[in-house]
Amino acid sequence: MNLASTDDFDLDDYLRRQSSTVDQALEIYLRKYPGAQQTIFRAMRYGVFPGGKRIRPILTLASGELFGAPANRLLPFACGVELIHAYSLIHDDLPALDDDDLRRGEPAAHKVFGQGMALLAGDGLLTEAFQLMSDKDATQGVKPELVLALIHELAHAAGVMGLVGGQALDLEAEGKEADLATVEVIHVRKTGALILAAIRIGARLGGATEIELARITRYGEFLGLAFQIADDILDARAETAASQQGETGHKEQKKATYPLVVGIVQARERLGELLQLSLFELEPFGARSLPLAAIARHVAERALSTQA
Amino acid sequence: MNLASTDDFDLDDYLRRQSSTVDQALEIYLRKYPGAQQTIFRAMRYGVFPGGKRIRPILTLASGELFGAPANRLLPFACGVELIHAYSLIHDDLPALDDDDLRRGEPAAHKVFGQGMALLAGDGLLTEAFQLMSDKDATQGVKPELVLALIHELAHAAGVMGLVGGQALDLEAEGKEADLATVEVIHVRKTGALILAAIRIGARLGGATEIELARITRYGEFLGLAFQIADDILDARAETAASQQGETGHKEQKKATYPLVVGIVQARERLGELLQLSLFELEPFGARSLPLAAIARHVAERALSTQA
Repeated sequence: MNLASTDDFDLDDYLRRQSSTVDQALEIYLRKYPGAQQTIFRAMRYGVFPGGKRIRPILTLASGELFGAPANRLLPFACGVELIHAYSLIHDDLPALDDDDLRRGEPAAHKVFGQGMALLAGDGLLTEAFQLMSDKDATQGVKPELVLALIHELAHAAGVMGLVGGQALDLEAEGKEADLATVEVIHVRKTGALILAAIRIGARLGGATEIELARITRYGEFLGLAFQIADDILDARAETAASQQGETGHKEQKKATYPLVVGIVQARERLGELLQLSLFELEPFGARSLPLAAIARHVAERALSTQA
Repeated sequence: MNLASTDDFDLDDYLRRQSSTVDQALEIYLRKYPGAQQTIFRAMRYGVFPGGKRIRPILTLASGELFGAPANRLLPFACGVELIHAYSLIHDDLPALDDDDLRRGEPAAHKVFGQGMALLAGDGLLTEAFQLMSDKDATQGVKPELVLALIHELAHAAGVMGLVGGQALDLEAEGKEADLATVEVIHVRKTGALILAAIRIGARLGGATEIELARITRYGEFLGLAFQIADDILDARAETAASQQGETGHKEQKKATYPLVVGIVQARERLGELLQLSLFELEPFGARSLPLAAIARHVAERALSTQA
């Protein structure tokens, strides 16, 4: 198979099916509580539904299915990843951090429920992720040693060496001149770590060999960085468009981004390069890796397609 | 042995030794990171050192030792409990919740590091708790099934059915007339759940039988509620003293507290009753339960000793 082409693969259909699977599972996991009409539950749900594209949990599914793992084995962990992503967005939008009033075109959680409740909803979702993954009914059939190792991997990715640490570096870099090394470190920790963990967790649940896991890990590292660079390019494009229309900019301070440091042309070159590198790692897996390849293309091409 | 008397037990010395054991373990667990001079690490440490009395992790140790568990088996979980407690205090002090500028007489984390960094430090500590408890080196010798069950129990106590949910109810009750049932539910979830989990986790690590665990659970339930009522009484006393001296009150709104709902006299009666109930549950364990009995007395007696 030539992985340079994923044309015959219907990614839209694939993403639709997988995100619906993820949504159903999240729905079941979050429905287990009595008294769910309480504000905190509504605030937590608000952070989870409707979600975005569910790219992270879909990566767990795609990576696990590449190694033959059934969806029900993957879902508690895929959803754990998504709950952590959802918590991080709620906290990120708070005035103490990015101070964003909108999330996916809708009022941010703190605009709807107030800052205190939004803060607690984020805390609740983060805790819920670990409660879900340590639930022996949810993870039935997965060896406890492996469950623990996956919880540990995800906690590491979400914690001070990953997501939280990346956010902190990002916060400190605000308004300062950042160099490329700083931008990459922030990206790798803030965005890359969780994406990488999502992918590795799937592969580990599928029983990938060490060599296979090493390949999947490199794919995940390239994809994680590509993901954030693509976002940066799209943000820069949106900002340019907004300022051309005389609209007021984002409330947040200038962030350390790829296009800001190396320019849009080089950012796009780097993105194209990362896409090729990620696809290269998938080659030995052949057609089974079509979903992962198509996702990588999809992530990169939204930012490569047109000029800013 | 007559548990009505714990006079011969040197609680001060016991608490000093145990809190020093906890501090040393926390120091080791938090020291594992490279680049620890980064602000986020300093903010996380600031939330942990110097701590308060370390009552929660000491309860895990005391409960575990009652059933013969060695300290090294208990410490990862005792410290997990304390990290969760530390995170909750940092978030609680933020302007979005209680808006407290001081914590144990020192500037709150958000006054030192800013709100964004304090928010992230709390997130980091919560995540770190789960990373620590899922670390197979740290929990060596404990069966993976049990490790998972304890992580699950602690996540439940920290989550939306426990600490986070209690905080949310407390936030919603602010400035409203609360009845006794509401106050008890808030207390049980906000304070009681984590104390109960701390105690139960120790007993489970010590291999308590089901009957023993049921007793220890009741002890923990009584103690958890007693703990918060005692705090409420002490707070009410401090506020009365402050207002007599013409000092401005607390920044936060009136909270739902026991003395506010039933009056200080009845609150104190209820506290005395809870103390007796908790001690009663310990009787079958004899002298081995002296530390737990002395801690219960200590918790209650600070609020029973003098008139408000």
